[in-house]
Amino acid sequence: MRYPPLGPFVGVLGGMGPLATVDLLAKIIEETGARSDQAHVPVVAHNVAQIPDRQRFVAGTGISPLPAMHAAIARLDAIGAGCIVMPCNTAHVWFEALAARARAPLIHIADAVAAQWPAASSRPATVGLLATQGTLRAGFYQARLAALGIRTIENDAHAFEHLFTPGCYAVKAGDLARGGHLLQQAARQLVEQGAESLVLACTEVPPALAHVDSPLLPHTIDATRALARACVRWWRDQAAHDPHTVPPSD
Amino acid sequence: MRYPPLGPFVGVLGGMGPLATVDLLAKIIEETGARSDQAHVPVVAHNVAQIPDRQRFVAGTGISPLPAMHAAIARLDAIGAGCIVMPCNTAHVWFEALAARARAPLIHIADAVAAQWPAASSRPATVGLLATQGTLRAGFYQARLAALGIRTIENDAHAFEHLFTPGCYAVKAGDLARGGHLLQQAARQLVEQGAESLVLACTEVPPALAHVDSPLLPHTIDATRALARACVRWWRDQAAHDPHTVPPSD
Repeated sequence: MRYPPLGPFVGVLGGMGPLATVDLLAKIIEETGARSDQAHVPVVAHNVAQIPDRQRFVAGTGISPLPAMHAAIARLDAIGAGCIVMPCNTAHVWFEALAARARAPLIHIADAVAAQWPAASSRPATVGLLATQGTLRAGFYQARLAALGIRTIENDAHAFEHLFTPGCYAVKAGDLARGGHLLQQAARQLVEQGAESLVLACTEVPPALAHVDSPLLPHTIDATRALARACVRWWRDQAAHDPHTVPPSD
Repeated sequence: MRYPPLGPFVGVLGGMGPLATVDLLAKIIEETGARSDQAHVPVVAHNVAQIPDRQRFVAGTGISPLPAMHAAIARLDAIGAGCIVMPCNTAHVWFEALAARARAPLIHIADAVAAQWPAASSRPATVGLLATQGTLRAGFYQARLAALGIRTIENDAHAFEHLFTPGCYAVKAGDLARGGHLLQQAARQLVEQGAESLVLACTEVPPALAHVDSPLLPHTIDATRALARACVRWWRDQAAHDPHTVPPSD
């Protein structure tokens, strides 16, 4: 049975973790500001969390998440994804491997963050990266921000062990109050070390800091929101170039 | 290229509207209470809002949403949906037509609501249905609640025109404050007419009443949360019967 084409959509390789995917979907809606259902960005979210743990594999204590991530992207490709995003910064360790096999182009979350500082005059001198050790070791944020003339600083080993990593896992376990408390301390360490702005470069962090109403939030760039804005830009570009994807005026 | 199977998932035919789908995904996470990513209910959410307006078609002023809904279900079926749910009550006007063509079984939102009153002793005598005119005309809530011995009452035409319908469209347009204000007045009318409990049988209603912190919330059954619980039950049944779907203990 054939049905009318629904058109391309933003494919979300989610589930890492599930709450971060819900946070991205909510922020895509906020950033779109649509006045009717039909004007919203079309999204298919693969929020299947049965993907082996990224941080554990990077730490040498787990199996690779890559085959399951390839399988999820193959599903999104099979039904017509126009682009694919991942609301998980650590997952971008595998960005090139995934992009090489995907049919749809992947949008990199660190490119979306770098796009938040278009004018050189608006750029801070020093930015703190609130990110997993896997994300930091991969170096994709440091490289993009260095290209903009921005110096980056990171949490030390003690903060990772006692604040950042347990804070992330508290969020994954649904304890946003504890997660927010720990992650805010990790954020404060970066401010005390001279960060003028913080990149919330782990998707567990924004919901946790919002939950505890952190006073640091005005000084942060939310990577999830930056990715949401990139999704809205992609959709507007599609709608501008292909009459079939123009949302009905309703 | 073949990848390892990811297993069945809850397919969500969403986008009606997009915020209601995000609300369902958040409630599935809340109702699961997982302690790690891998223990969450696997979900693929088709949050593509380019489906013709349901209420307008029912009112005789728009084109049928059915072909687009069939196409969305075909996508979820093509990639292995184990069951399909719709976080839109009005969409259930087409439930039988969709279920007849879908490969995966569809879970009816009104069955999920009826399951909230398993014991006869807990059932209210009179329930107010806060629902669109399309949902009410289709009669699926009235039939299920009558079978449980529950009488249902509905808003009058004046309340639809001035409270319920503009309240729904305010939510779709992102104005939760205005939507909550109007929908709460529609809810209050049902309480004044004798409803002991209210079924929030339109998925725009729960986020709106939550936004205005409505004092009526303790006396409501949230159809979206009931549907989320049905998704969790489906996943636990799968995990109990098929060793391949058991989430890793992690």
